[in-house]
Amino acid sequence: MDEIVERLRRFTAERDWGQFHTPKNLAMALNVEAGELLELFQWLTPEQSAEPEADVREQIADELADVFVYCLLMSDKLDIDLLAATRAKMAKNEAKYPADLVRGSAKKYSDY
Amino acid sequence: MDEIVERLRRFTAERDWGQFHTPKNLAMALNVEAGELLELFQWLTPEQSAEPEADVREQIADELADVFVYCLLMSDKLDIDLLAATRAKMAKNEAKYPADLVRGSAKKYSDY
Amino acid sequence: MDEIVERLRRFTAERDWGQFHTPKNLAMALNVEAGELLELFQWLTPEQSAEPEADVREQIADELADVFVYCLLMSDKLDIDLLAATRAKMAKNEAKYPADLVRGSAKKYSDY
Amino acid sequence: MDEIVERLRRFTAERDWGQFHTPKNLAMALNVEAGELLELFQWLTPEQSAEPEADVREQIADELADVFVYCLLMSDKLDIDLLAATRAKMAKNEAKYPADLVRGSAKKYSDY
Repeated sequence: MDEIVERLRRFTAERDWGQFHTPKNLAMALNVEAGELLELFQWLTPEQSAEPEADVREQIADELADVFVYCLLMSDKLDIDLLAATRAKMAKNEAKYPADLVRGSAKKYSDY
Repeated sequence: MDEIVERLRRFTAERDWGQFHTPKNLAMALNVEAGELLELFQWLTPEQSAEPEADVREQIADELADVFVYCLLMSDKLDIDLLAATRAKMAKNEAKYPADLVRGSAKKYSDY
Repeated sequence: MDEIVERLRRFTAERDWGQFHTPKNLAMALNVEAGELLELFQWLTPEQSAEPEADVREQIADELADVFVYCLLMSDKLDIDLLAATRAKMAKNEAKYPADLVRGSAKKYSDY
Repeated sequence: MDEIVERLRRFTAERDWGQFHTPKNLAMALNVEAGELLELFQWLTPEQSAEPEADVREQIADELADVFVYCLLMSDKLDIDLLAATRAKMAKNEAKYPADLVRGSAKKYSDY
């Protein structure tokens, strides 16, 4: 992952695009890419979404990568350790949703 | 990262939440979390967004983690290697946006 | 609708919130509200989504109203006639998707 | 507005697309269009966003229309009176954000 962050920094610097990368803009770009990912699923049934055709699967991989890239750019910009933040959030979720109380219930599963 | 994916699998299995994790639903959940991240920035100026207050910075880290978690859950579900997909996408972007042609221009920088 | 736009203008002016209503910020706020709408549906099956419980139906109405409010605020800000723009877009869609060619196909139905 | 809803019903029926219009799918489509609107603003400064170039302004109108269309399709599907719901939401906001307490403050202005 560090190697990808390094490559993103170089990519951005070589194009002088750092000036556009305010956290506000990065949050917007992340949402734009998330929307492009969503587009691939909007008319699929849940079943179809589990078995995407080969070309759709490749588009999904591309859009997931775009979202991930903006997670990395924002973390890097704001000096957030993404892996540490994720571990901390998971610890919160493990405490917030005790397995015995929420098992099999989507109602209990609001904002994990 | 592998260790986080492993922990997510266990978290999901213990709560019997795998039944809700169709790729269609995961794409929705990823967008919901992306929207919560966006909310933190919506009324900030670009300058304010670069220097978030401590409590906001913590919320940003939490929401970024949520987005990343759904990237991982979807990759895992669809057997996509997220790091490899990201490297492949970056190679495409490096070819698509030659530094000499796009330097400093947001116009050229449409959907990276 | 005009009466609602008038009421929104008054609401905004009385709170001196016009300073936050750049089109960029309004586009963000519209997406935040769209995400809150999406949240209500993320774990529902397609069938459940067609018969939401009474309290969920009320939340849906609230979130739809929020999205609509931002459509109106942005139209008003940029001097766009929303009804005219919608009629123009529908004319484009009617031409782009000839009924005989796309009937019953979600594949043809990409970005209407 | 009624005339537009009528035209949307006809458009959908002639293409036999009603089968795709579960509220869940419509919520996704609304978010996809909201994301396309956001894309137009992602790299603009707040100032640039207030004075979009003519071609961008036209794209904004198109995307706003798309979002509005999905507001109407979802309202129609779930038998929600969009104008009445908006008036009700505005009454809530007027009570929730007393002008004297929130004037000029984006902090107080969280989820209007």
